[in-house]
Amino acid sequence: MEIKIAQPSGFCFGVKRSIDMVEKAVKDGKKNIQIFGPIVHNPQQIKALEEKGVKMVNNIDEIQPGTLFIRAHGISPQVHEELKKKNVEIIDATCPFVNVEQNHAKKLHDEGYQVIIIGEKNHPEALGAQGYAPGSLIIGSVEEAKSLKEVPKIGAVVQTTLEPEEVAKIVAELYHKAKEVRVYNTICQSTKMRQPAAKQLAQEVDLMIVVGGKNSGNTRRLAEVSSRIKTTYHIETAAELKKEWFKGVKKVGISAGASTPDFIINEVVEAIKKIDKEMSKEKSKKKK
Amino acid sequence: MEIKIAQPSGFCFGVKRSIDMVEKAVKDGKKNIQIFGPIVHNPQQIKALEEKGVKMVNNIDEIQPGTLFIRAHGISPQVHEELKKKNVEIIDATCPFVNVEQNHAKKLHDEGYQVIIIGEKNHPEALGAQGYAPGSLIIGSVEEAKSLKEVPKIGAVVQTTLEPEEVAKIVAELYHKAKEVRVYNTICQSTKMRQPAAKQLAQEVDLMIVVGGKNSGNTRRLAEVSSRIKTTYHIETAAELKKEWFKGVKKVGISAGASTPDFIINEVVEAIKKIDKEMSKEKSKKKK
Repeated sequence: MEIKIAQPSGFCFGVKRSIDMVEKAVKDGKKNIQIFGPIVHNPQQIKALEEKGVKMVNNIDEIQPGTLFIRAHGISPQVHEELKKKNVEIIDATCPFVNVEQNHAKKLHDEGYQVIIIGEKNHPEALGAQGYAPGSLIIGSVEEAKSLKEVPKIGAVVQTTLEPEEVAKIVAELYHKAKEVRVYNTICQSTKMRQPAAKQLAQEVDLMIVVGGKNSGNTRRLAEVSSRIKTTYHIETAAELKKEWFKGVKKVGISAGASTPDFIINEVVEAIKKIDKEMSKEKSKKKK
Repeated sequence: MEIKIAQPSGFCFGVKRSIDMVEKAVKDGKKNIQIFGPIVHNPQQIKALEEKGVKMVNNIDEIQPGTLFIRAHGISPQVHEELKKKNVEIIDATCPFVNVEQNHAKKLHDEGYQVIIIGEKNHPEALGAQGYAPGSLIIGSVEEAKSLKEVPKIGAVVQTTLEPEEVAKIVAELYHKAKEVRVYNTICQSTKMRQPAAKQLAQEVDLMIVVGGKNSGNTRRLAEVSSRIKTTYHIETAAELKKEWFKGVKKVGISAGASTPDFIINEVVEAIKKIDKEMSKEKSKKKK
């Protein structure tokens, strides 16, 4: 069985950078390292960091003296102000591409646009960007865009991990809602390339395995896109793989979301190789 | 037979204004009145003006001393400069909504955007607006938008008479082509309301008659939109009406393009009334 991995797969630049920053802090001996919110939508990676003594804190009240990381998703300036009041060293690991999104949201607000964050309603990145443009709205679907009131001018930014095709449909609806529509296409390059790469690979193989947290929006979308083309299983870890999926499969494709660490992808590859060997043995037994 | 006329139908604000301006010039006794290009895509209206001594000139070389009107569609600043060299009084009847489109095109160009005129390739309005943004491109279809090269920022304006739904699809494609897409929705209110009004009426009647020049883009689009819903005939004048179209028809709807004069619409209404009477007579004869 041939195994092909879509490129890019796994950690995006921003997530990789934030984890590197946390791991450096561990190495540097920083005390009581905390991350404000799960650093990445991947339970295995979180567990790996927790084993190094890093804590995820979900509420401001839980924060203890020490070091506090702002994760790649970023936070609103209002929450940032709250964090500053705590007796803690803040290290900002916001993805630079998210910073661009936040800055555009602020600029559009300052220039009098009704700001729209094209993003998922409860996604931390969208909520963070929303804080930079008071009165802005998060719009995640064509239906939501259709229900908007007409305004003189709309300024929009895009959650970095959305699927470009879906965003384009929302942009088309926004066009009907204002005399001027200004959209900053802040989807990051990594996301933009990840989905076409998965689509392409899905066309070339017999089966697709998409690896990543079930709570990771971008991994779920990757699985959706892939499943439109070829049979696709979305798994979090190698333990979920089932031998029966691989019957008659000659080529298997692997794609992984922006929040999936390399070690998980490697474990999946190794597990598929093992399944392949077992199946080959069974076959040769039958022949005998 | 009931006859319903979609509202709005017929001359848009800009065309009506330009013809009023020409007729006022005739009344004021201006000498040798010429219009640069057909004032409206309607042969009957042109004939009516020609009968008053007004001439349509299609080339700069044809211009004679006297008065020269710039029609509602507007012209490029380059052509305007050429006209100024002629020994002629220029009266600018460019539609104010087209002026808005031209000004936005210029502003976007000055601010460093790759300007896109969303419009028909050879339409005088689109060509005029293009002149305000050197290097700008006229894009009239999703396919053309797809073939664009990626650029850092796109600024777009829209030919005032396009169908909003088609433009939205082009805007969705432009979204993929730049990090920033800024669209001024310069479709005029009259066009915006005309098509939904025709669609609505098409749903309420048994037959639609769309009245207007066969060379008028907005009339053709009106007929297209209507024909998706109900049997539709696109006619230029009452003379084209055929009795057989009205067999079994209880309600007939009329819509007319932005370049269709009221007198043509009235002639069509009267002709349908006549057909209706004839058909009633034939029916009562048969009964006897």
